[in-house]
Amino acid sequence: MKSFRLAMVQMAVGKDKARNVQNACQLIRNAAQKGANMVVLPECFNSPYGTSYFPTYAEPIPGDSTNALSSAAKECNIFLIGGSLPERDGDKLYNTCPIFNPLGDLVAKHRKMHLFDVDIPGKIKFQESETLSPGNSLTIVDTEWCKVGIGICYDVRFPELAQLYAKKGCKLLCYPGAFNMTSGPAHWELLHRGRALDNQLYVMAVSPARDENASYVAWGHSTAIDPWGKVIGKCEHKEETVIVDIDPDYVDTVRGQIPAQFQKRNDIYEVNEK
Amino acid sequence: MKSFRLAMVQMAVGKDKARNVQNACQLIRNAAQKGANMVVLPECFNSPYGTSYFPTYAEPIPGDSTNALSSAAKECNIFLIGGSLPERDGDKLYNTCPIFNPLGDLVAKHRKMHLFDVDIPGKIKFQESETLSPGNSLTIVDTEWCKVGIGICYDVRFPELAQLYAKKGCKLLCYPGAFNMTSGPAHWELLHRGRALDNQLYVMAVSPARDENASYVAWGHSTAIDPWGKVIGKCEHKEETVIVDIDPDYVDTVRGQIPAQFQKRNDIYEVNEK
Repeated sequence: MKSFRLAMVQMAVGKDKARNVQNACQLIRNAAQKGANMVVLPECFNSPYGTSYFPTYAEPIPGDSTNALSSAAKECNIFLIGGSLPERDGDKLYNTCPIFNPLGDLVAKHRKMHLFDVDIPGKIKFQESETLSPGNSLTIVDTEWCKVGIGICYDVRFPELAQLYAKKGCKLLCYPGAFNMTSGPAHWELLHRGRALDNQLYVMAVSPARDENASYVAWGHSTAIDPWGKVIGKCEHKEETVIVDIDPDYVDTVRGQIPAQFQKRNDIYEVNEK
Repeated sequence: MKSFRLAMVQMAVGKDKARNVQNACQLIRNAAQKGANMVVLPECFNSPYGTSYFPTYAEPIPGDSTNALSSAAKECNIFLIGGSLPERDGDKLYNTCPIFNPLGDLVAKHRKMHLFDVDIPGKIKFQESETLSPGNSLTIVDTEWCKVGIGICYDVRFPELAQLYAKKGCKLLCYPGAFNMTSGPAHWELLHRGRALDNQLYVMAVSPARDENASYVAWGHSTAIDPWGKVIGKCEHKEETVIVDIDPDYVDTVRGQIPAQFQKRNDIYEVNEK
């Protein structure tokens, strides 16, 4: 299987939705010009992150924001993991990642399955479930290079999701996410490196850039990890695009060296989808 | 639930079995004198690590080595996670961790479930299955402080084991282990921190000291991790004992702040024992 180039677009997200979408499309074009075959946007790429913003910024899929992403994917001939945006579907809102192939077709969308409801006294309190509903299914997309599994931010804390993606043949997991200044330094890299090493596959964690004036301050530090658990690309906290090479065959190489994926004791335990 | 003090005994292991056992007992006494309530020994505490050594050093359980551990546990009034030793049971050999309560009773033994069969060209090749058989069950011991789940070394690469231990109520996992100079720097800390953070519990990884002249050179770096994923105690590579405080209530505190253990989507996936 041939290698490909993946761009992590750690974009700055402000309050102007149209400008956010425009910025995303421009950064996609820039990444494609640098040779990217796949582009990953951050969680909430068209809206500030916060339960008060979600109802205002939400739109259906397809809608204006995803139509713009579709055009950008087609124009640039790239596979696009469209971060996430607040999605309106009837009475319900979701935190949703739309995914486009190089023809601009919306091939899948992942609705965040695990809502971010945490309360760390004196540090961070957040209840996504105040306005959002959870998605109820795994999302795997087929690409010409490998299968890709999608999770959004807090989804990464649930190892079962990544284990199922690995079991179903994914060699790359993409997690658009926005950790904060408490969970970011403590857990961002550890969680994503853990997913990569435990499942011996590539993991991309793509955050918005940090905005110190936002109500929710993102950690940034978008990170690309290989199947050996090694960090192969990393942003700081400002707006930045980092491009990494992904070699699906290296997944097989690592699994040949340490064959943990084939030595599981499925006579004793198993992770299953219901 | 009250706190307790746990000693990680990163002991030097040589070719003289009787001396290894004597050394282990002396280090247990030293740890108890420093206030340890629980002591964890490393993998292969009475034998060099290597498939050629296992048949020669193996003994039944109970046997001379475990009788000595039993006496030390009783004398010191400590709970003892006895690292591991090559166990002979009929025609078969196992890599086994014996566990003793403060009365010196052998309360459980864990036989390594996942054998270390890896081949990293130019770095390390090892086939534990050349001489060992795998254990076929999880091992949980009840203590006056909390339930403790046991794994041995390569067992840590299989997250399902730790997930089941967490599901069954363990607040502490002990992994006697001996990573090498390839997997050690790359994966030792990442794997054990990952188990702690994903399952929000304490994890102890206890290695023998490094012996540069051994056929298998251990990484050392015994490490204690808390449920937040933070390293709370760590050895270098020489013979050393590090004592840490374990607070079972802190497991509940962390799980209250980030309630991931209660937010699993068991309507969609589940890890089960068969």
